[in-house]
Amino acid sequence: MPSTLLTDLPAYAELRALADSLKSASIQEFFSQQPNRVEQFTLEAAGLRLDFSKHLLSAAAHSKLIELAQQAGLAARATALLQGEALNNTEQRPALHSLLRAKQAPLSALRDKLEQVHSTQQRMRDWCERLNQGQHQGFSGAVITDVVNIGIGGSDLGPRLVSDALRFYHGDIACHYVANVDPADLQSTLLELSPESTLFIICSKSFRTEETLINAQVARQWVLNAGASEADLDKHFLAITSNLEAAADFGIPDQHCLPLWDWVGGRYSVWSAVGLSCAIAIGWDNFTAFLAGAERMDEHFQQAPVAQNMPMLLSLLEIWYCNFFAAENHSVLPYDQGLQRLPSFLQQLTMESNGKQVAQDGRSLPYHTAPILWGSAGSMGQHSFHQLLHQGTRLCPVDFILPLTTHTGMTEQHRFLVANGLAQSRTLLLGRSAEEAKAALLKRGLSDSEAEELAPHLAMPGNRPNTVISFEAVTPETLGALLALYEHRTFCSGQLWGINSFDQWGVELGKDIGMDILSRLEGEQKAAPLDPATEQLMLRWREAQRLD
Amino acid sequence: MPSTLLTDLPAYAELRALADSLKSASIQEFFSQQPNRVEQFTLEAAGLRLDFSKHLLSAAAHSKLIELAQQAGLAARATALLQGEALNNTEQRPALHSLLRAKQAPLSALRDKLEQVHSTQQRMRDWCERLNQGQHQGFSGAVITDVVNIGIGGSDLGPRLVSDALRFYHGDIACHYVANVDPADLQSTLLELSPESTLFIICSKSFRTEETLINAQVARQWVLNAGASEADLDKHFLAITSNLEAAADFGIPDQHCLPLWDWVGGRYSVWSAVGLSCAIAIGWDNFTAFLAGAERMDEHFQQAPVAQNMPMLLSLLEIWYCNFFAAENHSVLPYDQGLQRLPSFLQQLTMESNGKQVAQDGRSLPYHTAPILWGSAGSMGQHSFHQLLHQGTRLCPVDFILPLTTHTGMTEQHRFLVANGLAQSRTLLLGRSAEEAKAALLKRGLSDSEAEELAPHLAMPGNRPNTVISFEAVTPETLGALLALYEHRTFCSGQLWGINSFDQWGVELGKDIGMDILSRLEGEQKAAPLDPATEQLMLRWREAQRLD
Repeated sequence: MPSTLLTDLPAYAELRALADSLKSASIQEFFSQQPNRVEQFTLEAAGLRLDFSKHLLSAAAHSKLIELAQQAGLAARATALLQGEALNNTEQRPALHSLLRAKQAPLSALRDKLEQVHSTQQRMRDWCERLNQGQHQGFSGAVITDVVNIGIGGSDLGPRLVSDALRFYHGDIACHYVANVDPADLQSTLLELSPESTLFIICSKSFRTEETLINAQVARQWVLNAGASEADLDKHFLAITSNLEAAADFGIPDQHCLPLWDWVGGRYSVWSAVGLSCAIAIGWDNFTAFLAGAERMDEHFQQAPVAQNMPMLLSLLEIWYCNFFAAENHSVLPYDQGLQRLPSFLQQLTMESNGKQVAQDGRSLPYHTAPILWGSAGSMGQHSFHQLLHQGTRLCPVDFILPLTTHTGMTEQHRFLVANGLAQSRTLLLGRSAEEAKAALLKRGLSDSEAEELAPHLAMPGNRPNTVISFEAVTPETLGALLALYEHRTFCSGQLWGINSFDQWGVELGKDIGMDILSRLEGEQKAAPLDPATEQLMLRWREAQRLD
Repeated sequence: MPSTLLTDLPAYAELRALADSLKSASIQEFFSQQPNRVEQFTLEAAGLRLDFSKHLLSAAAHSKLIELAQQAGLAARATALLQGEALNNTEQRPALHSLLRAKQAPLSALRDKLEQVHSTQQRMRDWCERLNQGQHQGFSGAVITDVVNIGIGGSDLGPRLVSDALRFYHGDIACHYVANVDPADLQSTLLELSPESTLFIICSKSFRTEETLINAQVARQWVLNAGASEADLDKHFLAITSNLEAAADFGIPDQHCLPLWDWVGGRYSVWSAVGLSCAIAIGWDNFTAFLAGAERMDEHFQQAPVAQNMPMLLSLLEIWYCNFFAAENHSVLPYDQGLQRLPSFLQQLTMESNGKQVAQDGRSLPYHTAPILWGSAGSMGQHSFHQLLHQGTRLCPVDFILPLTTHTGMTEQHRFLVANGLAQSRTLLLGRSAEEAKAALLKRGLSDSEAEELAPHLAMPGNRPNTVISFEAVTPETLGALLALYEHRTFCSGQLWGINSFDQWGVELGKDIGMDILSRLEGEQKAAPLDPATEQLMLRWREAQRLD
């Protein structure tokens, strides 16, 4: 069945005309024309509050985007996702990450799967409690105090983010994360740890991810070198995998392996056993609260009408800027130090899901898909790249992520952070004309000609679109809801673009070419040379090894 | 004097025509047409090797870009920069960061400044040696073991990067970095430290940076709470500042203040006393080697003709893609875990320097300036956003940063990393046609119709431009050269765009608005309300405080 493309939807052409008419519109004028704009352009769900009033979006354009979503049948697509239709058509399977946080199966046909989920959760809970109660010992009898998660991509970014973000919920076990195949990553982590009291969690669905296995082998040897026997290894290793045989060959017995299923994509797997490391860090009750927050967002996503639907609205804004205003970027700025890794997590979620150029049916798409997502924890960017956000030439919509309270107890200092987050959002809206800049300079005592000359450098266009997602505090619940919000937003955008958000064929070829180059670096002679640039670089690499 | 704009240069129109003719050109065909392309499109300087053969750049376009640089007088601009002309015209001062790494003054007029630099370096050296030799004690007599740098933006990103990147050169003093005004940043850092053995370096040129001062006050109180008297404070605090009076009020005496000068911009200040924390971490000799590496790049920048000039070439490539191919992004992927913070450093360097829309003379620019720069340490992105690089719809040139050896001693594992870096560069070039993808699928045993259906999803366009910057190892010298390379590249691009790369007026207004909002959050009554969205968010914030 041919996919429906964005450009096939009747509202598309109307939106195009609307967008063209709004190219030089003023967001501030929208506020004047629409007295209840803030109330009308604010959504609430699952403890999150989404203010999208500061967008280049008239009431008419907003209504038309809602129509677009209706024409695309987004509500039905949400149901199809949550009920396990095989939406991942190139791999012929569903994307059922929402089932990982469900208390009840949405369909009786999913009961078996949900039972597997719940029995795995029971095992995760046992491990959490065992470790947090100091009941698990290493080969020497020492109690395990540190957990190292070895995984990459989806087996790393999610649990690392959750562990970081919920630092104030941590118990006594310290969790560490190693992802990079650069040996410096694992080496610097192990430097701080003792083999006797360290447990490794090897996260790899296939147990064939090269980067992860290479690091796992080093970790294994590190434990052996400290005096453990091969038989002791199981005390120091768990695996999250569906390849029990390979894990057993490594020395990890079945009862130390927690399963993953093919209906959970790597970048959607933090809710599964892949989340074990962060579940250990924050304790099982908090991990279930994290799941519950996501489940609330699932319910909202399924039940709320389009106009009130937070993931759908965020997705429509993405489409609005990407496909009608040619935006190539999207910035996410969490005003919370614990959420500093959110942009990295979202890079994988959005760019791996929707960084594609063919429709589900294989046709080339005639329009742009995922933008580049980037960002960092506020307030740091204010002393760095915000210059470009305010005065650069690029259209880059911003999501401000703004917890309203702090766990540190330092409320006065946190107030300064909140004031700055609000100020950046407001400044992007307001800007400052050259006349206003000149007046400010005259006030500072500059002469008229000095002020006249300098003013254009201080002028800022303003009218720069941004969203504020605020919530009372970073808790397991709000964090779960926030991540599920972006998951569903990503799915909706994929649906509107007509693409399969759940495969990632674009990363395969690089792996194959990597193995070919590796064998050549290892000295294997092959008949056909590679491209001259790669050959030259391999030569330089060989020279550098001799010099070593 | 009116600035020369990019579009004023005679080569601009010719490049526009060339670029149009190359819109569907094949980089692989360039390799066939130009037998020595790799040799011709490789530059070497200061221990770095720059391969730009995998670019959408014909030999003719390359020559024309060189002409553009000549017409813009880039060589003369380099001299003007290095010799201290007042290029920062809106602040009427030079940008003399290169003097911070000079052994000799390029002009006799700069001798006084250089003497100040060298005498400051002598003081930095004394502090490095004193601390590394365990001769500096805190209030209780305990030896200082930990240094915490408190600074933000340029007072943080540079020294943090250098300290991270040169981990294998560290001595016994551990260096920590706190930047975010979110109290969680400082609080989590202090948790691991003891006040008796911790020295703080407060980095703020004006000693008025709110974020830094707020954190510094907390640090000060932390030391006092541990039993230090006000008179003891000087044992625990150094300042890098030009505001001695404010530092003295804080409790830091003159002899504990190292100077900064108004001719050093924050984002160019790692070479100054701002680098003290990383100098302490790596030791003085290594810090001077870092300076020497940068100085070698300065010499190259000044002396090499345009066609051999590495910073100029990198800048021409930036202009080529931004202004002739409408690229909005640039990705930097260091295949080295220690360089994971390089993209953050470069975000400030490039986006704060060149994220502007007026010329030096204040005219609005009729073209785009700085792109969004983003990236992460390879290999992690391969399991994340590389999907978009390979199959997304965006033009995003990539710089691969590739050290050829490792300090870990784990050469076999490092080889895998290098192979992957090379493979990603090669894969971006090659891509894979739908026919090739189908053949690969048939080999895997798929039926003809299955393979036919799946092939478009595996197809990759290739022809995606990328640069490889390789060097033997991450050493103080190569790191210094690398950072200076990007500094001068940024300067050249600014010159070609006709902008002042050394001011940052765009960050001012947000600060003022931040103070206004803070006073409102603190309860101050003001006559005029803010925009309704900000008012609503302030209301929610107040509600959340009561709920706390």
